[in-house]
Amino acid sequence: MKAFEKSVKIPKVDGATVMLDKGLTPEFVESFLKVAGEYVTAVKLGWGTARLIDKEIVARKVEMYVDAGLDVFPGGTLAEIAIAQGNFEGYLNELDELGFNAIEISDGMIPMSIEKKCELIERACEQGFTVYAEEGKKRDEEYSVLSPSDIVGRMNKCVEAGAEYVIVEARESGKHGPMGAEKRERVRVLSEIVKGVGIQRVMFEAPEKEQQFELIVKFGPEVNIANVPPEEVIPLATLRAGLRAETMGRVALDGE
Amino acid sequence: MKAFEKSVKIPKVDGATVMLDKGLTPEFVESFLKVAGEYVTAVKLGWGTARLIDKEIVARKVEMYVDAGLDVFPGGTLAEIAIAQGNFEGYLNELDELGFNAIEISDGMIPMSIEKKCELIERACEQGFTVYAEEGKKRDEEYSVLSPSDIVGRMNKCVEAGAEYVIVEARESGKHGPMGAEKRERVRVLSEIVKGVGIQRVMFEAPEKEQQFELIVKFGPEVNIANVPPEEVIPLATLRAGLRAETMGRVALDGE
Amino acid sequence: MKAFEKSVKIPKVDGATVMLDKGLTPEFVESFLKVAGEYVTAVKLGWGTARLIDKEIVARKVEMYVDAGLDVFPGGTLAEIAIAQGNFEGYLNELDELGFNAIEISDGMIPMSIEKKCELIERACEQGFTVYAEEGKKRDEEYSVLSPSDIVGRMNKCVEAGAEYVIVEARESGKHGPMGAEKRERVRVLSEIVKGVGIQRVMFEAPEKEQQFELIVKFGPEVNIANVPPEEVIPLATLRAGLRAETMGRVALDGE
Repeated sequence: MKAFEKSVKIPKVDGATVMLDKGLTPEFVESFLKVAGEYVTAVKLGWGTARLIDKEIVARKVEMYVDAGLDVFPGGTLAEIAIAQGNFEGYLNELDELGFNAIEISDGMIPMSIEKKCELIERACEQGFTVYAEEGKKRDEEYSVLSPSDIVGRMNKCVEAGAEYVIVEARESGKHGPMGAEKRERVRVLSEIVKGVGIQRVMFEAPEKEQQFELIVKFGPEVNIANVPPEEVIPLATLRAGLRAETMGRVALDGE
Repeated sequence: MKAFEKSVKIPKVDGATVMLDKGLTPEFVESFLKVAGEYVTAVKLGWGTARLIDKEIVARKVEMYVDAGLDVFPGGTLAEIAIAQGNFEGYLNELDELGFNAIEISDGMIPMSIEKKCELIERACEQGFTVYAEEGKKRDEEYSVLSPSDIVGRMNKCVEAGAEYVIVEARESGKHGPMGAEKRERVRVLSEIVKGVGIQRVMFEAPEKEQQFELIVKFGPEVNIANVPPEEVIPLATLRAGLRAETMGRVALDGE
Repeated sequence: MKAFEKSVKIPKVDGATVMLDKGLTPEFVESFLKVAGEYVTAVKLGWGTARLIDKEIVARKVEMYVDAGLDVFPGGTLAEIAIAQGNFEGYLNELDELGFNAIEISDGMIPMSIEKKCELIERACEQGFTVYAEEGKKRDEEYSVLSPSDIVGRMNKCVEAGAEYVIVEARESGKHGPMGAEKRERVRVLSEIVKGVGIQRVMFEAPEKEQQFELIVKFGPEVNIANVPPEEVIPLATLRAGLRAETMGRVALDGE
């Protein structure tokens, strides 16, 4: 039972939340999951951070996340480095050994045809991983060449190949690519992506309250949000539930 | 005994500090209070965050805060939602059940006459809670209608009704309302409020060093500061004590 | 063995990293060192924060840092206050009692001739401390009077007097002094300092990714970086190792 459940009614909190773990301690993860685990859907061990941490520590954290019912995967950059070094199969095996149940497949830094990307997605699905496919480029000058319909087209192919979610690349800050455009343009492009891919499949990287608020008001509290720092997981859930000034009164109560 | 107490003299650190807890783990709170508890006066469980956390976890944290001699209360937004749902009495009872010893009463989102607000304050005092009354609006367009003398007038009524402290609303960022005005205007309005209400009663929401420094230089190290993130509690205390460059040499040593 | 060591090759991570501890709990430090200790060279207990914390707690943290093979020292501001109060000898003794193995000597707030500064450095070396000497002023108006060749001249005297590292003052934010100048000027001044003092000896205060990235691209992954918040220690190490988009492909692999 939640605190204040008797005196304050709220709607059900929904929508996927991907937390960013860029080197948390196992002790913190253990405590955190008891407080906020139910408001997290998946955990990304940001970019290549896992590569620098002892195998035993990573495996222990992964186990805690999996036991809590979450997807857990390293950042797509790590997979891209393995691919660039010609070792995607070795990477899949090491994911397995460490206990990961999911993978992010992206082409933010390395060039990759959509056919190649779909092959990798299929290969990862075959091996039992839940696939998070990211679309977009880390470098803004390469990103700007992609049109919303290019992004939608590629995302839908990723979904057909087996991806569970498709993520719009915006970096740790959530301020690159379409997420970094000025507001009118941003809303136009994101709306086109949501329309083309479906609100259930698409995820936006949005670590900050203002970004999350804009997405929730535009697309509803069930919009999928990624790159959420641990200390913002509960705050984001309050935005979804109408428990913060921004969305108070804007989110309908259950069954009313 | 403190570290470096023998070789470095400092003045007594004074002034109330309200820490913002937006979902901390009980394990963190336990460790934190041993390091920094004496520099905290009260803890606000930000806006509606407590509503999403297990009753047992909230009660356990509240107990630790109360045992450390601190006031602890949920954000005023949670009370406002209970009031909007017609359940202020139920809210008071649930505060009691969970062990809270204080309450924040605000009208940042819902319209409320000052008479109604004072009634609620009296009611909460009757039930034994220490009352933190917040003045100001969450939405800047509603806030800007209030003059400094309106704010002072309402604050003084809150104090007469039993409020221990009155807080100038500025949101988590400390950048809304008069705290968000350009500097000359900000200083003018805050000075009027301090003059009208008294430095002991009024609190400013100021999470950032620059904001805290400005308040300390203008109103002295004993100014009351709210919305302080846990990791800024010790840094704020160093500003008050002249242990940081900004205030070094500006804060008089005890008895000298 | 590190996670993903079998499938992803990276170069050796090098360069000194000074972490900023502004009031961490001993419990956090214990967990943190197991995850990231090997990517830290030294820990600074920021400015005067240690003065407000119980002696036993500070001593316990210092012991953990020393046991992990790290240098640990309070911020130079604390030493400056002791000096201004005429008690440098008492300060050295208290450092000893608390278990510190290093000291920061700066003149950011108090005026000090370079001869006096070198005397203090020699005195601290004599007593067995590793010396981190900081150059530059806390107040921008005093800082701007120093030319790059003044800074280099003073730094080299500090090194001759026994300082292990010389730090370019930039405050907690890393945005004051030459680090806060516009880009062309910043690069010009920093390059002159590196050229004059040597890349092994000089340290830059750079808490943010963009600052760290600029330094790594300009001076190589082995550049010494200070004022790194705990949660940015692993991210900084990924930048050095080419495990993050910014530096992926820019950092050469070992022996290739």
